[in-house]
Amino acid sequence: MKLLNVDTVNEVKKKMEDYFGDIIAGYEEIEITEALGRVTSEDILSSYDIPDFNRSTVDGYAVVSKDTFGASESLPAFLNIIGKVEMGEATELKVSKGSCVYVPTGGMIPEGADGMLMIEYTELIDEIMIAAHSPVAPGENIIFIGDDIQIGERILPKGRVIMSQDIGVLCAAGISHIRAVKKPKVAIVSTGDEIVDPFGGINKGQVRDINTYILSAMVQESGGEVTSSIVVRDDYDLIKETVDKASKLNDIVVISGGSSVGVKDNTERVIDSFGKPGVFVHGAAVKPGKPTIIGKVRNAAVFGLPGHPVSAVIIFKVFVEHLIDRMLGKIKENYFVDAECSTNIHSSPGKETYQMVELAENEKGYTAKPIHAKSSAISQLSKAHGMIRIPLDKEGIKAGETVRVELFR
Amino acid sequence: MKLLNVDTVNEVKKKMEDYFGDIIAGYEEIEITEALGRVTSEDILSSYDIPDFNRSTVDGYAVVSKDTFGASESLPAFLNIIGKVEMGEATELKVSKGSCVYVPTGGMIPEGADGMLMIEYTELIDEIMIAAHSPVAPGENIIFIGDDIQIGERILPKGRVIMSQDIGVLCAAGISHIRAVKKPKVAIVSTGDEIVDPFGGINKGQVRDINTYILSAMVQESGGEVTSSIVVRDDYDLIKETVDKASKLNDIVVISGGSSVGVKDNTERVIDSFGKPGVFVHGAAVKPGKPTIIGKVRNAAVFGLPGHPVSAVIIFKVFVEHLIDRMLGKIKENYFVDAECSTNIHSSPGKETYQMVELAENEKGYTAKPIHAKSSAISQLSKAHGMIRIPLDKEGIKAGETVRVELFR
Repeated sequence: MKLLNVDTVNEVKKKMEDYFGDIIAGYEEIEITEALGRVTSEDILSSYDIPDFNRSTVDGYAVVSKDTFGASESLPAFLNIIGKVEMGEATELKVSKGSCVYVPTGGMIPEGADGMLMIEYTELIDEIMIAAHSPVAPGENIIFIGDDIQIGERILPKGRVIMSQDIGVLCAAGISHIRAVKKPKVAIVSTGDEIVDPFGGINKGQVRDINTYILSAMVQESGGEVTSSIVVRDDYDLIKETVDKASKLNDIVVISGGSSVGVKDNTERVIDSFGKPGVFVHGAAVKPGKPTIIGKVRNAAVFGLPGHPVSAVIIFKVFVEHLIDRMLGKIKENYFVDAECSTNIHSSPGKETYQMVELAENEKGYTAKPIHAKSSAISQLSKAHGMIRIPLDKEGIKAGETVRVELFR
Repeated sequence: MKLLNVDTVNEVKKKMEDYFGDIIAGYEEIEITEALGRVTSEDILSSYDIPDFNRSTVDGYAVVSKDTFGASESLPAFLNIIGKVEMGEATELKVSKGSCVYVPTGGMIPEGADGMLMIEYTELIDEIMIAAHSPVAPGENIIFIGDDIQIGERILPKGRVIMSQDIGVLCAAGISHIRAVKKPKVAIVSTGDEIVDPFGGINKGQVRDINTYILSAMVQESGGEVTSSIVVRDDYDLIKETVDKASKLNDIVVISGGSSVGVKDNTERVIDSFGKPGVFVHGAAVKPGKPTIIGKVRNAAVFGLPGHPVSAVIIFKVFVEHLIDRMLGKIKENYFVDAECSTNIHSSPGKETYQMVELAENEKGYTAKPIHAKSSAISQLSKAHGMIRIPLDKEGIKAGETVRVELFR
């Protein structure tokens, strides 16, 4: 029997860096209306000052602030209205001592004015005069040129995963197109003689294909692009033909099934058949997911994932998503929540253990309930809110202990 | 000056329930390959037992467990190999006392066997006999029919936002199509004489349109569908014409700008011009975002959002997203993280205050740093990781206090 020569999670990540660290993903120009979820390939700088004119934040009168010092309801300051600023239009008006100009919210502050008196603190005496009932401090209720964003200022960093709010900031800076990292191309291959189309007929002993669909959705969620997905029998020549074609057209090939130490394990032989470096990870010290293999065929990373959907999902998250993130140059912002673990969890010494958990809110925060099931139980997938990681050197978790839960999407 | 008659956040939500609670969104049949992010319109039940045959979780031999009790390396039990199960095929073999059958991982357990002995604990004596070096407990290494999911069991609840993992569970149950709630249709209208196309030329006093793009992206993220977006001048007739058309074709119309108490405030008049009930929320006790208005035109909810992008984003999250979630019947799973607040935050008495924050990881967990900026500063949008809510009756937050941060996507 062939022994598995396993690497720890960190060793696997280090090896992936060595073998794939030089892969430079290209970029493409995209419209910002299509930018949600894409990753910036460069720092994005503003070409403008924002705002690019001094702007009122209130409806009221632009004044020389000194004119209003000491003003109150019982002792108002009287100011002459010399005009009105129209929204969206520049103004030639100039405010000087004793005068004021009406400016709506968002309107341009006329030259000479250094404060905006809110309309609520004024009284219209007649068409050309107001009484100011409150003082205005210099700069009050005004956003000055560049106050928000200065010309040349970085508005989004390289590696940013674009969120809806970012699209607003890009609009503000007049940016209609950005350079985004190209989506890594991924081929999904499911092997196994028992695997059949999930939506057709099924005989006893056969199993509906799950991995093709779940892994395709995960690639999509990670920011990759699935170029093809195929189910092939566990046959050396068929798998070789599939990997040959897929490795020419893709950055990543994900094969699931066929990687346990069984008689029909062909994935490893196929990867090695393309010459050096072949398979460089022969197993990972991860539970579940030990039989993971990783190799390189041409310039493509080829993963052999366990066939069990739960293990495949975990290994995808731990290694494949890591590589996709790396290829995208993503600034990873993974949030976790801390939760009280509801029961003891056993871990395997010498393996990094991942446990899917269900979260429930309580008065103090969250409770994490491990979803205990045999490893092939797929029902747990739709119950899990996230997973916890138990390091190599930790001997399980005790009920009541605080655990960190990495949230699923 | 017209006074704003404001409602608290809960009062606003209650009114929305009263006016829009009867809106029943339709459903549509969709393929599961297009189901990511969609919402189920009914409980989804499994039509099958999963697995639908007794299945091995290891490579090894199907045995009568009693035959192996007491077996060890020094005192093995000898068993006759009567055959082999092929992957993906049913078997007619029957295991009886003293015999065994080879079964690969995922293979079907032959009749009569009640345990799987891992190949690692066996020694092949000759072609027809093995020595068992370890005992097997009844049921060991077998997943029985329905162990994972039973026929008729609910695999996904009504209101579930479909994640990648759910797609795997649907495949396992042989489900290719599901009933999803139709996406609420949303029209986006930005008003303001100063608002211009963000990507064209701009004059002094004009402002690039941000809200159209940011609100469209937020609708998309919330599970709605933007059917149209338009920028119109702050003109009663133009806005009326737009709302007339949009309210016929959409579930929600989101108007931004034009809702501050200024001379050109037309949104409210337009909504009221269509008759009862017209505007039923004339302002919300929210900071920022007080000038929010909500009304009903035909069967559509019409929102008047503040023009400042930051306020518009917050009001969208607090009210519009709430209504979209309600129309979708979403089981909302909003995660928060608890963080230590880095500075004092002032709140306005009598208003629910929302403050955007930046998160930083520290040894113990997270620190939340309020993004302090004038309310129209849009640069803060791309810095914020989430927001904190300060209730009506709470007098701000002190530095060092633990706050709950609702994460942005």
